[in-house]
Amino acid sequence: MKRRQFIAALGAGAAAAAIAKPAIAQSMPELRWRLTASWPKSLDTLYGSCESFAKYVSDATDGKFQIQTFAAGEIVPGLQTLDAVQNGTVEMGHTAYYYYIGKDPTWALFCAVPFGLNTRQQNAWFYEGDGQKLMDEFGAKYNTYNLLMGNTGCQMGGWFNKEIKEPGDFSGLKMRIGGWAGKTLQKLGLIPQQLAAGDIYPALEKGTIDAAEWVGPYDDEKLGFYKVTKYYYYPGWWEGGTTNHLQINLAKWNSLPKNYQSVIRAAAGAVNVEQTARYDARNPQALKRLVAHGVQLRPFSMGVMEACLKASNEVNAETAATNPDYKKVLDSMQAYRNDEYLWWQVAEYSFDSFQIRSRTKG
Amino acid sequence: MKRRQFIAALGAGAAAAAIAKPAIAQSMPELRWRLTASWPKSLDTLYGSCESFAKYVSDATDGKFQIQTFAAGEIVPGLQTLDAVQNGTVEMGHTAYYYYIGKDPTWALFCAVPFGLNTRQQNAWFYEGDGQKLMDEFGAKYNTYNLLMGNTGCQMGGWFNKEIKEPGDFSGLKMRIGGWAGKTLQKLGLIPQQLAAGDIYPALEKGTIDAAEWVGPYDDEKLGFYKVTKYYYYPGWWEGGTTNHLQINLAKWNSLPKNYQSVIRAAAGAVNVEQTARYDARNPQALKRLVAHGVQLRPFSMGVMEACLKASNEVNAETAATNPDYKKVLDSMQAYRNDEYLWWQVAEYSFDSFQIRSRTKG
Repeated sequence: MKRRQFIAALGAGAAAAAIAKPAIAQSMPELRWRLTASWPKSLDTLYGSCESFAKYVSDATDGKFQIQTFAAGEIVPGLQTLDAVQNGTVEMGHTAYYYYIGKDPTWALFCAVPFGLNTRQQNAWFYEGDGQKLMDEFGAKYNTYNLLMGNTGCQMGGWFNKEIKEPGDFSGLKMRIGGWAGKTLQKLGLIPQQLAAGDIYPALEKGTIDAAEWVGPYDDEKLGFYKVTKYYYYPGWWEGGTTNHLQINLAKWNSLPKNYQSVIRAAAGAVNVEQTARYDARNPQALKRLVAHGVQLRPFSMGVMEACLKASNEVNAETAATNPDYKKVLDSMQAYRNDEYLWWQVAEYSFDSFQIRSRTKG
Repeated sequence: MKRRQFIAALGAGAAAAAIAKPAIAQSMPELRWRLTASWPKSLDTLYGSCESFAKYVSDATDGKFQIQTFAAGEIVPGLQTLDAVQNGTVEMGHTAYYYYIGKDPTWALFCAVPFGLNTRQQNAWFYEGDGQKLMDEFGAKYNTYNLLMGNTGCQMGGWFNKEIKEPGDFSGLKMRIGGWAGKTLQKLGLIPQQLAAGDIYPALEKGTIDAAEWVGPYDDEKLGFYKVTKYYYYPGWWEGGTTNHLQINLAKWNSLPKNYQSVIRAAAGAVNVEQTARYDARNPQALKRLVAHGVQLRPFSMGVMEACLKASNEVNAETAATNPDYKKVLDSMQAYRNDEYLWWQVAEYSFDSFQIRSRTKG
């Protein structure tokens, strides 16, 4: 080989290395992030969603992007994931945003509010309507980027030691109740308490609260409420399709290569539908077991529902009058809901009605 | 530079290439696959799901794994995606599996059958119940691996030029109807036709068929049926939650590195929920427009629904008696459905009932 050929050969090699190497370094960096959840490890539905997400991301990146998940209390308490993500203590969190109504009630609208959207409608509002756009704007004020990652389906109305037959029966009850529903029930004299999952059972047992709601049969059975209360009400009219979000520190999100962002989007989307499937799969069996334990199922009466709707409308009007973010997001969500139910009552609801009727006929 | 230095330099370059390249080659090979869909490009719901999926995969792999999507007829006709994937003409397909009841009616059970599962229940059966496992076993007989990738929600009952007031009104009608429902309606004298999307409107217009069903308001509006028929029935009791599948040639699936398999799983999962959101978002507006065009909405009467349920039970019993695969999958799906609706009627259905009632009260 002549010197000229050598230079050409070396040049080609060097050029190839120069092209290949930065591309790998940029697109597949080795990252180790931390995710702090609002949930105890015992809830394989909620905490399990965080684990599923971390596995998708690790597997899809050949182990290059590792996300370590932490239960409530391991890094920060369950109701402080937003603070931890906002200030960069961790890169990620997983929560139900109605825990943060103390900062701004607008948060609740992205998660669940009384008489809001059901699960599929919530997904439609975010993926196809203005939900994600509104959340991007609002979340940026808290230095966060957020993606849907889980939906519990419609929840139960909670556990009570006495029957709730009319609106006045809420009066004076101390109840653990998540998010914005507490504000609504205050109008009916209830005294709401916001407690993380692990703190509810001891409070019920000691009698420091009279009633509590968490999610539905499967989670509630795990938390043991049926051992200390008798009546289990439905529906959870304040949680028609409660949404969990993956919270990401905004600067950290923006620092990711595009391919990692895409992996996160796909993984969060997959976990979003898988979490709902997990609840839908496990709630029926849990409901049977609870009834076998002697739990008394009770529907809220139409009178109770109507009174709660009226109280909710009042809370929404009062809050929207002084909080422009709340008004903007509420208006979008309610207009969406009204159109959705126009369609829902046609095919979907008629089908479910017939299926339920046929099943109960045996 | 001396010859010795030259060799060393060249050797170092070659060695570096030799180390770096296999690692990349194993986990991030450059692949170009083809996906053939059962849909025309005009249906941005169904064909759009294929495009969304391909984009996720490309973005997540930094463009290394490219999937080119083809509409029905570009490579093979819309009702032949299974054949194309099975024999390796293409690596992937996207379809509704009830198109393949001619090969085996068991296929329909994974997609939609009369009085089957609704959308969320279908997801739960696949992700958490036995659905995916049963499909893995059955799909392998056709050299395929399959993942959920889209669900339309409950469909409409289709377009008719005369009113269907009692079961006898189906008799003698030539109707385009997808999948296994045709077999059920044959018991009531209907003459079913299986046509791909693009062939339905011309057949209706020419009068070679008397009635047709496709999906729901948004897709049906695009296909123009309202221009040539008058009555639009609901619910589509044969499509409570019609599932689309990503079909993958089994040998090709097994040849993929694990990280690409994980990217595909996550992307298909995300598209699964996004497709439902797309339908849920677009159907309400389309329904309003159709009604403004003068379309007459009609519910199937309880007498019609009961007669169809009876016919469906007969078809299931007859088929299960001679087809062990059908029996096995049917038994799993029906047991799942019965448990699901036990739970559904509690919180979820009560919530939707109240929301619909409140909306119509204004």
